[in-house]
Amino acid sequence: MSQNTEAIFPHGEKASPDYFSGTTWVKSLVTANDGFNTIISNVVFEAGARNNWHTHPNGQILIVTDGVGYYQEKGKDILVIQKGDVIKIPADVIHWHGASHDSSLTHIVINPNIQKGIVQWMDRVTDEEYNRFK
Amino acid sequence: MSQNTEAIFPHGEKASPDYFSGTTWVKSLVTANDGFNTIISNVVFEAGARNNWHTHPNGQILIVTDGVGYYQEKGKDILVIQKGDVIKIPADVIHWHGASHDSSLTHIVINPNIQKGIVQWMDRVTDEEYNRFK
Repeated sequence: MSQNTEAIFPHGEKASPDYFSGTTWVKSLVTANDGFNTIISNVVFEAGARNNWHTHPNGQILIVTDGVGYYQEKGKDILVIQKGDVIKIPADVIHWHGASHDSSLTHIVINPNIQKGIVQWMDRVTDEEYNRFK
Repeated sequence: MSQNTEAIFPHGEKASPDYFSGTTWVKSLVTANDGFNTIISNVVFEAGARNNWHTHPNGQILIVTDGVGYYQEKGKDILVIQKGDVIKIPADVIHWHGASHDSSLTHIVINPNIQKGIVQWMDRVTDEEYNRFK
């Protein structure tokens, strides 16, 4: 099966440099006011971009719709993630995600059960940490 | 921005003919056992296919990733939905969705807060009802 070559969503707004390294775009799809107890956004990381180390009090689901990126849980190796992958991030696990060195990454991010909170941001992922994949 | 031309997910399993008219494929992405209190699937309707009238006790979110389809709430007109649309279906609203007459429809479906239940299936969408769009 094929699909047309346009991206599914527009880029949206630039993500905060306080929590993201490199250029990242966030398009909100479902907000806390929509009555689903769930937040959903589309996030595009340009090559080399990533978020800070962080946790989610009830976990998060990533649905990768385009490109190639990295996902790492604290104390484990960096994993390559790509279009079609679904990453189920457990509650309270310290992790980061982002684009690979040479490709952008587009994913839909889903935070369920937000009555328990959404995210706790931590330290930046340094170039040394990011480059450990190579 | 462009993305490659392959579908994001494989087709998965054929949907039950008890609740779907025409050929529909369901690929499970997140199950009730994954600990998110949320179910997520990718659904592909071939042209002309649709589900029965139904409700969700806590609503459902549709993220259309490819193609063109229809969405109708009971008593309202049939709406055209297409790639990039996000449909927020309120709790307990009787509705159906499916492909258009001439195009397949691919969407990610998200059921949050499943402790309240997932779906209540109702009558089939007849050809007469489906063809009212034309």
